Amino acid sequence: MSDCHAASQAERKSVIYVTISPTDSDVFYPTLDLCTSCGHGHKLEENHEYIYKDEVDDDLICHICLQPLIRPLDTPCGHTYCQECLTNFLLESDFCPVCRTPLMLQSCRKPSLLVHKLLDKLTVACPFNEFCMETLPRGEMEDHIKGR
Amino acid sequence: MSDCHAASQAERKSVIYVTISPTDSDVFYPTLDLCTSCGHGHKLEENHEYIYKDEVDDDLICHICLQPLIRPLDTPCGHTYCQECLTNFLLESDFCPVCRTPLMLQSCRKPSLLVHKLLDKLTVACPFNEFCMETLPRGEMEDHIKGR
Repeated sequence: MSDCHAASQAERKSVIYVTISPTDSDVFYPTLDLCTSCGHGHKLEENHEYIYKDEVDDDLICHICLQPLIRPLDTPCGHTYCQECLTNFLLESDFCPVCRTPLMLQSCRKPSLLVHKLLDKLTVACPFNEFCMETLPRGEMEDHIKGR
Repeated sequence: MSDCHAASQAERKSVIYVTISPTDSDVFYPTLDLCTSCGHGHKLEENHEYIYKDEVDDDLICHICLQPLIRPLDTPCGHTYCQECLTNFLLESDFCPVCRTPLMLQSCRKPSLLVHKLLDKLTVACPFNEFCMETLPRGEMEDHIKGR
């Protein structure tokens, strides 16, 4: 078992707690467990989080969250966004955020393997950096966390 | 007028000649004029040609011609090829060259702007390198040749 896997297992057994308000400063509420894909404590409906180690090409950045694309979706007008970002945007809008062409989520589709491969190759750091200093391709993070 | 533009104009006024056979060694036939997009002497139904100055990411390479993608087309099975390469391949085949999924040209479509932008950014050398030592993004080559 790798150091990271041991750390990951230890982290995942605990629940992260945050203080809700100053008046309840001695009360802690459970909020988020750690994501088994990215190792961060985001909500299910939020994007995975990564610590990028190199500069990422501008064209691989989502124009909604301004982060490297996660689970990208192509629009018919040719733009590409994170699925979560675009889904949330289209809850209250009906146009492309960049060119304002009328847009429905159902008309969007996954980009080709080429785009997924470029994103999977982005170099990220293991989030358990107190125990693991490894950097690796983003697409290998889930397996790294699982300790395969 | 740039040096390159002058050179380009001079080159384009002439027609390239080749010897057709040893028996007709003193007879020359016109074959190819120079392409106004890439500056090379390829046939209309062939891909543009470029002199790449940096290593190109493997994922931007066409699996048919093994060169950086030109006018890319995505297949429904997720692969991407040059339009010319795929069109020629499908004249005699009816499957994807990589995964062999049944394939028709009509079911393919252009990738998103993201892919076109990545390809347009590839650094290439001016083909008129006897007169012009410039390197530039591939997407600017046509304007460079026109001397805009």
